[in-house]
Amino acid sequence: MARAPVIAVIGAGDAPADVLELARHAGAEIAARGATLVCGGRGGVMAAAARGARERGGHTIGILPGYDATEANPHIEFAIATGMGEARNAIVVGSAAAVIALAGEGGTLSEIGLALKLGRPVVALRSWTQLENLYRADTAAAAVQIALELCGRSS
Amino acid sequence: MARAPVIAVIGAGDAPADVLELARHAGAEIAARGATLVCGGRGGVMAAAARGARERGGHTIGILPGYDATEANPHIEFAIATGMGEARNAIVVGSAAAVIALAGEGGTLSEIGLALKLGRPVVALRSWTQLENLYRADTAAAAVQIALELCGRSS
Amino acid sequence: MARAPVIAVIGAGDAPADVLELARHAGAEIAARGATLVCGGRGGVMAAAARGARERGGHTIGILPGYDATEANPHIEFAIATGMGEARNAIVVGSAAAVIALAGEGGTLSEIGLALKLGRPVVALRSWTQLENLYRADTAAAAVQIALELCGRSS
Amino acid sequence: MARAPVIAVIGAGDAPADVLELARHAGAEIAARGATLVCGGRGGVMAAAARGARERGGHTIGILPGYDATEANPHIEFAIATGMGEARNAIVVGSAAAVIALAGEGGTLSEIGLALKLGRPVVALRSWTQLENLYRADTAAAAVQIALELCGRSS
Repeated sequence: MARAPVIAVIGAGDAPADVLELARHAGAEIAARGATLVCGGRGGVMAAAARGARERGGHTIGILPGYDATEANPHIEFAIATGMGEARNAIVVGSAAAVIALAGEGGTLSEIGLALKLGRPVVALRSWTQLENLYRADTAAAAVQIALELCGRSS
Repeated sequence: MARAPVIAVIGAGDAPADVLELARHAGAEIAARGATLVCGGRGGVMAAAARGARERGGHTIGILPGYDATEANPHIEFAIATGMGEARNAIVVGSAAAVIALAGEGGTLSEIGLALKLGRPVVALRSWTQLENLYRADTAAAAVQIALELCGRSS
Repeated sequence: MARAPVIAVIGAGDAPADVLELARHAGAEIAARGATLVCGGRGGVMAAAARGARERGGHTIGILPGYDATEANPHIEFAIATGMGEARNAIVVGSAAAVIALAGEGGTLSEIGLALKLGRPVVALRSWTQLENLYRADTAAAAVQIALELCGRSS
Repeated sequence: MARAPVIAVIGAGDAPADVLELARHAGAEIAARGATLVCGGRGGVMAAAARGARERGGHTIGILPGYDATEANPHIEFAIATGMGEARNAIVVGSAAAVIALAGEGGTLSEIGLALKLGRPVVALRSWTQLENLYRADTAAAAVQIALELCGRSS
């Protein structure tokens, strides 16, 4: 069995409508390309991306901070209950072959840093222009295309 | 979307043939009952249970100790790369609604202890007779039946 | 600078008076022998052992489940706030060269299992007679003596 | 017993001489003010800060990525062996009341993000000018002064 590539989508738990729409498109595109979505499993960007992926029939994994799987947003198919709080951010990016970052705050920043440290390429989608060493995209489709190429699978 | 119940199978990474056969049956029964298997993602009981589940068309999640998804056994559909070493054992049982324990050593013992601490019921399958507060089963089918009843879903 | 040997004391967060007294003696003996105590940082056996160590002028480290250092018992000199819940148990034993186990429940059982997995010798102090592969002691002084010998330092 | 305030110093594991000198001064100042230093326990900024603190008689805690306490730099008095890899970064900042950040890369960036997420104030010492929501200092003494004020203790 060949495992499908896994792409993480990271961003704010509380985000404006345009960011959420971008996240939903990213999730949809990940599913359309046959990849699996991993995210932090909660609200905002995490829920929007998972919703987009599920609407296109893709698989979604949520890496939760607590021990209660019911804390996952309704679009998470597989809930991983880490009980680790913010240290779970390392698992979100560590479990992905590439990371798509949307606008966010400290939690998202920590995931970008951890991804860089672990050697996971990060594609910044209309965000994080102040940071170096990130790939850049202006559309969800472009971000997913770059992410898939970077994890060694383009279609 | 109703999330499928998640059952953990735990046991030795290096086990004799009869224990592996029991693990494979447990995995198959979990899949046949529509539940998702979670395990530690490596060899021995973990691989046998995942193989059994995949052979019956079930979903399998492997919670890996390292950061490299390719360390997962070939029957793992979704590899979670924790990078946490043995601390990942808390995630294996925390992500399950119930746990089926086969013969094992220190790692398995730690998972039983963590499951009890987190309130996840543990069904000992022909093993761990020296421990208290565990449910008991002699066949894989009985173990899965008990586990599903305990996580609030019997069929 | 030679680092002092570190001994973990593990046991129930809610324990009867005789177990607490045993834990306090163990902590005192650890300090008297120049070793550092590490524990889970909360109440019961953890607090009693830390109290014993501090009363003898020893150093005490508490590995806390949450992010709030004020949750440490008052005898913890250095509070490590892991935010990891029960997964922190792996750090308690991983940070020790040897482990002294008193009576406890699931959390203590998980620490024994993790210690065995990580190769840290475990000395059971009037407890855990049902488990194999543990060293045995009937007094706090004997337990600490064995623990120090096992971590390569006897005096 | 009142616990001493704990200040984290974070920065690159491989840093130029001027950054190492700054880290050493920060560690020395932390010790001079009666605070405890926590860091990631390895080389570069971590070792320089710990050296500075020990030279002034302060206590130093190293939160290590692996399970082997001997991987700590020689200036670490108390080595915490997490076995958690990069996820240990959450413990470094979670265990501190305030964080002093020097120049670094992905790992340091992740610690800044985690600190912001956990509500630990971050003082950027001649570094990280591209990030928002950080306090700023140009000297080690000023950074420690600000950090101590922010964790509710000025002297």
